[in-house]
Amino acid sequence: MLAGMSGERITKITLDESEIPRRWYNVAADLPSPPPPVLHPGTLQPVGPADLAPLFPMALIEQEVTTERYVDIPDEVLDVYRLWRPSPLFRAHRLERALGTPARIYYKYEGVSPAGSHKPNTAVAQAYYNAAAGVRRLTTETGAGQWGTALAFACAQFDLTCEVWQVRASYDQKPYRKLMIETFGGVIHPSPSELTAAGRAVLAADPHSPGSLGIAISEAVEIAAQHEDTKYALGSVLNHVLLHQTVIGEEALLQLAKVGDTPDVIVGCTGGGSNFAGLAFPFLREKLAGRMDPVIRAVEPAACPTLTKGVYAYDFGDTAGMTPLMKMHTLGHDFVPDPIHAGGLRYHGMSPLISHVYELGLIEAVAKSQSECFAAGVRFARTEGIVPAPEPTHALAACVEEALRCKETGEPKVILTALCGHGHLDMAAYGSYLAGTMTDRELSPEDLKAAAAGLPVV
Amino acid sequence: MLAGMSGERITKITLDESEIPRRWYNVAADLPSPPPPVLHPGTLQPVGPADLAPLFPMALIEQEVTTERYVDIPDEVLDVYRLWRPSPLFRAHRLERALGTPARIYYKYEGVSPAGSHKPNTAVAQAYYNAAAGVRRLTTETGAGQWGTALAFACAQFDLTCEVWQVRASYDQKPYRKLMIETFGGVIHPSPSELTAAGRAVLAADPHSPGSLGIAISEAVEIAAQHEDTKYALGSVLNHVLLHQTVIGEEALLQLAKVGDTPDVIVGCTGGGSNFAGLAFPFLREKLAGRMDPVIRAVEPAACPTLTKGVYAYDFGDTAGMTPLMKMHTLGHDFVPDPIHAGGLRYHGMSPLISHVYELGLIEAVAKSQSECFAAGVRFARTEGIVPAPEPTHALAACVEEALRCKETGEPKVILTALCGHGHLDMAAYGSYLAGTMTDRELSPEDLKAAAAGLPVV
Repeated sequence: MLAGMSGERITKITLDESEIPRRWYNVAADLPSPPPPVLHPGTLQPVGPADLAPLFPMALIEQEVTTERYVDIPDEVLDVYRLWRPSPLFRAHRLERALGTPARIYYKYEGVSPAGSHKPNTAVAQAYYNAAAGVRRLTTETGAGQWGTALAFACAQFDLTCEVWQVRASYDQKPYRKLMIETFGGVIHPSPSELTAAGRAVLAADPHSPGSLGIAISEAVEIAAQHEDTKYALGSVLNHVLLHQTVIGEEALLQLAKVGDTPDVIVGCTGGGSNFAGLAFPFLREKLAGRMDPVIRAVEPAACPTLTKGVYAYDFGDTAGMTPLMKMHTLGHDFVPDPIHAGGLRYHGMSPLISHVYELGLIEAVAKSQSECFAAGVRFARTEGIVPAPEPTHALAACVEEALRCKETGEPKVILTALCGHGHLDMAAYGSYLAGTMTDRELSPEDLKAAAAGLPVV
Repeated sequence: MLAGMSGERITKITLDESEIPRRWYNVAADLPSPPPPVLHPGTLQPVGPADLAPLFPMALIEQEVTTERYVDIPDEVLDVYRLWRPSPLFRAHRLERALGTPARIYYKYEGVSPAGSHKPNTAVAQAYYNAAAGVRRLTTETGAGQWGTALAFACAQFDLTCEVWQVRASYDQKPYRKLMIETFGGVIHPSPSELTAAGRAVLAADPHSPGSLGIAISEAVEIAAQHEDTKYALGSVLNHVLLHQTVIGEEALLQLAKVGDTPDVIVGCTGGGSNFAGLAFPFLREKLAGRMDPVIRAVEPAACPTLTKGVYAYDFGDTAGMTPLMKMHTLGHDFVPDPIHAGGLRYHGMSPLISHVYELGLIEAVAKSQSECFAAGVRFARTEGIVPAPEPTHALAACVEEALRCKETGEPKVILTALCGHGHLDMAAYGSYLAGTMTDRELSPEDLKAAAAGLPVV
């Protein structure tokens, strides 16, 4: 692959299609203890497959609880992955030079996917397993629209109808995402809608409701539960979603090996956790096996600091309190974060699997203000040429911080991060930053106490 | 490179960084006759380097008139190209299957560049040569914003100030492009502006002028001509711009060779002509040398059909009639095309070099309505996963037409096209198409006669 590159300054480390990983990696198989079970909210007993069957096909339910180390990727999924995978790993020479750091910075870029983010890695897998189980329609919710776009694309590949409930405020403010979902053939409804009992109840109380992710989830779940041929798809948080994302880290391992580097520090942004896990878990396997010893650092927004300031407790996955109870780092399911631009990181909880790994002391976490993040994003765009989505600017801010630390100490550390998406449909956020109108608010101890007050008693 | 791929269905044909072309290709060196000279509008004599020196550095002026077959690409330019080059060549398996065609369709994708189009291929080169000549600032005009984005990115790489005059109507309607230019560090003015005599004159007559590309060119040129440290940059039409774009076709030649295919039909969309020339000229070299014999087809919008319905005559490059006279296929420099969504194809003329090649009978041309083009664009998005910019949907419509012809005849032709950019910032156009509100208007003989009436007498 790199024949002819020796002695030359490589920027973009590519892999052949034949090097796309053939298996997803399940980190649970290698952890010293299993993650706590998910509980039924009525009985407080661990949920079983029958509880989840109305919403998910059995293949995904099995992946949710599997203790196998690897799960084979079906050929039909690999075949769609080829449209953009393997994704490139870049050495950030120009950013390094601008920072004057001896560190070597690498970023794995998922913005080359059809939806422009890492989300299709799991959307395609979920669409495939549903189609294979005879499902004809998938429902989901979307906020800013990244997940809805990914699922609409994936459903187009397997002849499934995709129906998306988008939070009304985003539906009105971000018409481009809605149009992208429709271009991929998806059907999109503003939420709350008249199509569901949940939506009608909200509209009866407030005909002009701007909606929320919690309401949109309720609507999508309601339709899926009512129809035999319809299931529901979730874009983060759950074990099977994190599993599908591990193709990111598996590829990055191969790519770094090609240039003979081993990461000292791995940083990734965390909302529900799927991007972070996708990059980090394969490296965590290597760390647990003693083959490398990177520091693995999750970066979350200061406006929604689940790992750094939340509690580790059983909580609902949704705002309305309808889902099973998951043990996770949470700010409380009725916590409403400031409307920061990184919509994908505005989740009150953290993936149970990442929460467990954090409790085991295998990863660390930091929180960053959005102004610091956008400063890093602009610096990155001007040097590396890619305008990052607001979410990965959090990881870039942590990269810059680490690289400047290396400048102080003189350490030539190898820093690896996931650039999980481009910001082409998020330019308004850059406008706010460049105009100096972006605001940051730190959460006070009172905010945190109030948010945690609504936690369920388990 | 393709070891391990034998017998496997390859989708994405990638190249190593070491395979980025080291030379640009100048088709003029291989043509049976030279293109007619560019004339000074006052003297009607061929322009010399001194006429162009106020606007362009000498290295670019030399490239404009060179008769050498190849021009070496400077290391500094190659080094920036590495951020996205080599670009991928895709085999459109999913589109082929959807069409039920025996044709093999390949598309060279330039949307992976920082600006999301082929434009940085020349923007980077132009910024480099200007910086090397001691220039401190580049001015340019932009319509929809693709070219302004590319030049802003390129200037950031060489520490140049980039100042862009954007047509007022686009400036107001497409804020995302403006923000992208600013994110890359560019300075952007709505045109007409109070900063130039040209702009002030227009505003004096009409304080609410929506502007035009012609006015914006006048403003950018005026500032460049007035300042010693400032030059002007153009994103298409000129020989040196087409030259820089030939990296597209050179890479595609290598990539097709890797899978053992030779194109029977090459299609590309044409506005000013740089994308089309970039893909087609290296293949035209092979055709002229007898090494392959592809049909090479330019695809233009029915609303602006310069090659298929224009006259071949000397005309001004701009609307205001300030530039040197170029012999080209033109609808007349005061022709104002319908406001179709493919803004990049709304140019009254065609590159003189492509016009000359067309007159020599080496390429053919067809015109397509925008509804047919967007139908092809949506079909492409749902199968291949990339939402194309409005401009390359013209090429895709011609691909689909050719592939369906192959379905009739059973011919397994190899079709190659350039997908010159993504449509992430053009979703409003898809909205218009999906809502059924997109309009098409054929030009009447009277329209064409009126448009050509303003041609200068040479």
